[in-house]
Amino acid sequence: MRRSERIAAITRVLTDNPRRLFPLKYFTEKFDSAKSSISEDLAIVKKVFESLKLGKVETLAGAAGGVRYIPLYPDTEIRRILTDLCKNLSDPERVLPGDFLYMTDLVFMPGLVNKIGGIFATYFFDKDPDCIITMETKGIPIALMTARAFNVPLVTIRRSGKVTEGSVVSINYVTGSSKKIETMSLSRKALPVGSKVIIIDDFMKAGGTVRGMLELMEEFKAEVLGVGVLVETAKPEKKLVEKYISLLILESVDNDTDSITIRPGEWMQEAGL
Amino acid sequence: MRRSERIAAITRVLTDNPRRLFPLKYFTEKFDSAKSSISEDLAIVKKVFESLKLGKVETLAGAAGGVRYIPLYPDTEIRRILTDLCKNLSDPERVLPGDFLYMTDLVFMPGLVNKIGGIFATYFFDKDPDCIITMETKGIPIALMTARAFNVPLVTIRRSGKVTEGSVVSINYVTGSSKKIETMSLSRKALPVGSKVIIIDDFMKAGGTVRGMLELMEEFKAEVLGVGVLVETAKPEKKLVEKYISLLILESVDNDTDSITIRPGEWMQEAGL
Repeated sequence: MRRSERIAAITRVLTDNPRRLFPLKYFTEKFDSAKSSISEDLAIVKKVFESLKLGKVETLAGAAGGVRYIPLYPDTEIRRILTDLCKNLSDPERVLPGDFLYMTDLVFMPGLVNKIGGIFATYFFDKDPDCIITMETKGIPIALMTARAFNVPLVTIRRSGKVTEGSVVSINYVTGSSKKIETMSLSRKALPVGSKVIIIDDFMKAGGTVRGMLELMEEFKAEVLGVGVLVETAKPEKKLVEKYISLLILESVDNDTDSITIRPGEWMQEAGL
Repeated sequence: MRRSERIAAITRVLTDNPRRLFPLKYFTEKFDSAKSSISEDLAIVKKVFESLKLGKVETLAGAAGGVRYIPLYPDTEIRRILTDLCKNLSDPERVLPGDFLYMTDLVFMPGLVNKIGGIFATYFFDKDPDCIITMETKGIPIALMTARAFNVPLVTIRRSGKVTEGSVVSINYVTGSSKKIETMSLSRKALPVGSKVIIIDDFMKAGGTVRGMLELMEEFKAEVLGVGVLVETAKPEKKLVEKYISLLILESVDNDTDSITIRPGEWMQEAGL
């Protein structure tokens, strides 16, 4: 195999397996090449990923060493993605009766949710979660793509205990906005006690659901490293949870005037983006 | 940029955007290179993807032309993935009370569901769906990854009509195994009338849910190009739907003996795999 061919193959493997550590041996055996050749190939791949701002290619030395690709979105790209998304979400056609915003189509769009997962993974770059936690249904795609970027499992909290999940831990929680009592459940098998987790969800109003998820995590003695939501509403200003980031802030939805006001969240300033 | 660097960059773009058509201009402008150089680069990428059996890199001529990457899994790889999955699913720890099989952890494992989506996209390779259809909750990850491989949206049927989705079409259906009457709903906004769709779900027993989905698709005048399920049970032998493929067949789960029998489906023989 020529160098350019090896480089195509290495790039394919790394891109398709974010954060997975490949020992150099994996490539020397696959391409029947010397370690020195593979090291040079990796240096080129590293340089390209850096110059195109696609993330970091890390080489770790030693017996347990190897190479891994950490996808990271540059600030300009994050700004562009979120600005485009705000534009799309501002379409008057998205106003639903009761001043709700229709965003179901977008949270199931594979290309977009892949990017959103990448943005969360960029923000929580220095965290090392054992898994990503979400609640069914609309949070699943963005949480799955975040889990993919971290190369960890996704664990999905259910709205009811299902018989096919074995013994479950259920809690009641009060939704922050409509003050209704709801139930959420998680199978004991799904999450090892003492796990480090990041919570990802699609929407936050008063924060009752996320607070419920935090309480459920306490039942599993989990350490919550961070909370990320795609969209939060500007009102109520006081949320039931303190530490979280939101990618977008929904200022208002007005059924009478068919208008929507939505903008990227403040975390971008805080993070220096 | 040197050739090997351009090749790394092109491979990254194509791998990360399955089935998306990129005009040659996209790369000539991005790398400030001549069309002839990019064409040679693409020939190398094409050759590597073919020799490593990673799928097809297609170049389409003409004004609307360009290059796109169609991920395809080779038969040996599909066999290996499904055999490994059967081995994992046969773990006695997965037997649940009531002779159910615990597989929730696996259907939310990003790396695995990515592969399963790739297998469905390989099987339905010659279809050209407008979107992938699934039903919440556990079908979402594999259906999302199938949608990603086809570069089309995922549309998720809900178990109840949600206020935030606008006007919905709901139908009642009878579950094939427990003969219960259930409801499924889909927002009118979610699926344009007359769409071509592929249905993907995680589990089929008698086929009542899939039959319900087919009926719901009739309401949207959708053309169903195919149905794929991850696991079907061997019994009942007679299903309520006729045309579908299942990746795995669950022969039995026995709580008394803590044993599970599961094997790859017959479609592999039919497809010549």
